[in-house]
Amino acid sequence: MSAINKQVATSSLADQSLASLMAIFDSRDVVLGDDALPYAVDESRALTPQPSAVVFPRTHEQVVDLMHWARSNKVPLVPSGGRTGLSGGACAGANEVVVSMEKMNRILDFDPISGLVRVEAGVVLETLQEYCTERGWYYPVDYASKGSAQMGGAVATNAGGIRVLKFGMTRDWVAGIKAVDGTGETLDIDRCLVKDNSGYSVKDLLVGSEGTLAIVTEITFRLTRPLEHQHTLLVGIHDLDHMVDVFGKARNLAQMNAAEFFSESAVRVVTELHGLKSPFHEHYPFYLLLEYDEAGLDIDTLAEVFDGLDVIVSRNEKQKEYIWSLREWISSSINAQKPYKNDVACRISHIKEWLHDLESGLNAVNPAVNFIWFGHLGDGNVHINVLPSPDMARVAFDVLHERFDQVISEIASQYHATISAEHGVGVLKKDMLPGMLSDAEMTIYRKIKRVFDPDGILNPGKLFDG
Amino acid sequence: MSAINKQVATSSLADQSLASLMAIFDSRDVVLGDDALPYAVDESRALTPQPSAVVFPRTHEQVVDLMHWARSNKVPLVPSGGRTGLSGGACAGANEVVVSMEKMNRILDFDPISGLVRVEAGVVLETLQEYCTERGWYYPVDYASKGSAQMGGAVATNAGGIRVLKFGMTRDWVAGIKAVDGTGETLDIDRCLVKDNSGYSVKDLLVGSEGTLAIVTEITFRLTRPLEHQHTLLVGIHDLDHMVDVFGKARNLAQMNAAEFFSESAVRVVTELHGLKSPFHEHYPFYLLLEYDEAGLDIDTLAEVFDGLDVIVSRNEKQKEYIWSLREWISSSINAQKPYKNDVACRISHIKEWLHDLESGLNAVNPAVNFIWFGHLGDGNVHINVLPSPDMARVAFDVLHERFDQVISEIASQYHATISAEHGVGVLKKDMLPGMLSDAEMTIYRKIKRVFDPDGILNPGKLFDG
Repeated sequence: MSAINKQVATSSLADQSLASLMAIFDSRDVVLGDDALPYAVDESRALTPQPSAVVFPRTHEQVVDLMHWARSNKVPLVPSGGRTGLSGGACAGANEVVVSMEKMNRILDFDPISGLVRVEAGVVLETLQEYCTERGWYYPVDYASKGSAQMGGAVATNAGGIRVLKFGMTRDWVAGIKAVDGTGETLDIDRCLVKDNSGYSVKDLLVGSEGTLAIVTEITFRLTRPLEHQHTLLVGIHDLDHMVDVFGKARNLAQMNAAEFFSESAVRVVTELHGLKSPFHEHYPFYLLLEYDEAGLDIDTLAEVFDGLDVIVSRNEKQKEYIWSLREWISSSINAQKPYKNDVACRISHIKEWLHDLESGLNAVNPAVNFIWFGHLGDGNVHINVLPSPDMARVAFDVLHERFDQVISEIASQYHATISAEHGVGVLKKDMLPGMLSDAEMTIYRKIKRVFDPDGILNPGKLFDG
Repeated sequence: MSAINKQVATSSLADQSLASLMAIFDSRDVVLGDDALPYAVDESRALTPQPSAVVFPRTHEQVVDLMHWARSNKVPLVPSGGRTGLSGGACAGANEVVVSMEKMNRILDFDPISGLVRVEAGVVLETLQEYCTERGWYYPVDYASKGSAQMGGAVATNAGGIRVLKFGMTRDWVAGIKAVDGTGETLDIDRCLVKDNSGYSVKDLLVGSEGTLAIVTEITFRLTRPLEHQHTLLVGIHDLDHMVDVFGKARNLAQMNAAEFFSESAVRVVTELHGLKSPFHEHYPFYLLLEYDEAGLDIDTLAEVFDGLDVIVSRNEKQKEYIWSLREWISSSINAQKPYKNDVACRISHIKEWLHDLESGLNAVNPAVNFIWFGHLGDGNVHINVLPSPDMARVAFDVLHERFDQVISEIASQYHATISAEHGVGVLKKDMLPGMLSDAEMTIYRKIKRVFDPDGILNPGKLFDG
């Protein structure tokens, strides 16, 4: 967009504010009007986007200047990465300025001896993964949106995904962060060390803070050795007791990388849409996908341990792909039906009763809805997807969402479960948060927010209100 | 100690304060006078202990009451666990009341399906390890003081140890914390879940906060599968370049559990004191100990990869013990000489230049001192031990300590290293902290402290002053 266009594009910023904003950035790095809209939404489409502008910093120093500008002009900033979030954390409402990190997308430093890589916040996950793999290292946090999710967003949301069971969350791989807090101070924290007990872990406070405490400009990630070749298994599961039992048996064999489950309804939608065959002659209420390193675990031992069950042990890449596609294509296969989605977790030992109560509770809201269950059993993490029955009007279904939230919230509190396992709180779940946390915790959250952002200019209205 | 003794024991507490303190606890759970002194020091003996009292809570509620008492009476509290710390974090000075957690030592809950164990803060590490091992699970954070170190202290100091390379620090195993903050509020945080992205990680803020933000009363730890049988290797190392090179080669083979190094001077002191043989006919400036899971790594492959080097690959338990004793007995073998100790870490890629500069810098303070080098190469973590030459007067050596601190601090800042890898800051390193952190970070530390402890009653003077 040219500078001339920008002059005529509408913005709710006062002329003087706009002029001082334009002084920080090259003209091609500020976008106003309708062209700004796509940068003000995420996958959730939780808010009607009404940004005053989107800016594209290219340096850390520009972010510092921007923060001082925002404080002086009392304009809220909304950090924005790949906008693959599902909770509205990167949505920008009226009069907010979006800070897109996509032009800070350089890989700055690679240290093969220490196993560290330093990147700007706008580097895309897949780019990082490929860069490391080419150099004999591995960045192990992996999830479906890797083609567009950016590392700043991964840090802000503490992204999880499919190999958390073995490798943990993004938090576990952050060795250092450079960020600008809400006062414009640069925080260049941690020495990129595994061991650094030098006081409060401000780094861990920034990870998962959803852009409400600071804007992250650079991250150093720890890396690990390349992923071994994998055995992948799919097991037909009779009921939830059986699932927990098989999981326990599997865990005794060796360290698993992944333990994913999904319901028959999920398999049906994927196989029908993609023309795939059903995994077994018999249909099961649930399926469990298990993944192990090949090294140290013989394929025949694997097959033997699950003898008597309906099980596919992958013998080649094609079989692995088939098994994983049953799991990975669920979300995209149902998106057209605009399901009600939620992302929750509880202890594995409670999962049977908890899922039962969730299904009954949601069914009590409306008996005509359908469920697609899937998630990361190894982490106790379930992605709830509720679909309208075919003859239900869209609007009749959409009005149920608030009630679904309430049911999930109430049941979460009975099970000491979380209402946000890996998708974050954003705007969509902020009303559920006080039901989960104590007043003392909410008070601490608000005070921590004021430590980093006394004027409340960083992503206001996300996580909690003012 | 009887109630009568307590009446006559001296205490700097005002009569009224003492009376209200005694109202919270059973009389056998309050100790005054000289009997309190052992509870007011740690291994560092950093402060002259002068506690007003030591109290032994048996319940979370007593800790809540105690906190309210401390606020009303303006008496600082010093949390105390196994007192195995090396930085003075658990030392109590004049007019402070020590809160010993040793009577809160129950294992409260064990969840074998989810792999979780909930304990009171006073449970000893070795007790926890044995409890889990007997039940087919493993708590993997392991260090020399496990026979007396308590889990509350492990959390407060984010304890590390010998298997951090594979398993990480205590932080990585904390699933939930129950604590009392400096306002007397109970924080029952986290749902014991691997995945819980519900806002700021207050849990991670408490881990490593050295008792300055809250008193931890209960912790839920995640567990992992039992440790596999181990291959243990010892390699003779020609110089620091060679050490980093061999480490890189070792890392390519398989995931290591441990990569520990020590200098010839360390081997000499251990073998002489314990009557052990030297590992090799030839003497090397350094030795590298490597540990792998047996599963997935053939012993002959191991031996082959290190062919051409002087290497012992353990073929039985006795050999493993011998190799580990060379590493584990270093500290106890030199303690009688009261070495100057420090605990630092930097990137592995900088370790050669950094150790070289450390040795030159410390030698420049006094050329007659001797060095024992050892540490966790895989974590870039070095335990510096400086010994006086045999003819040096104790007092002449002790006056050098402050200068040693300065040298280490200066060099740390050149290398972006940490002055506290795993031992914490306590009182011994608080003067070094501002040299390592920015003013912005120190400001944030102070503000965070005030969020949790507005009256400054929790372990004041630790980490930083007021």
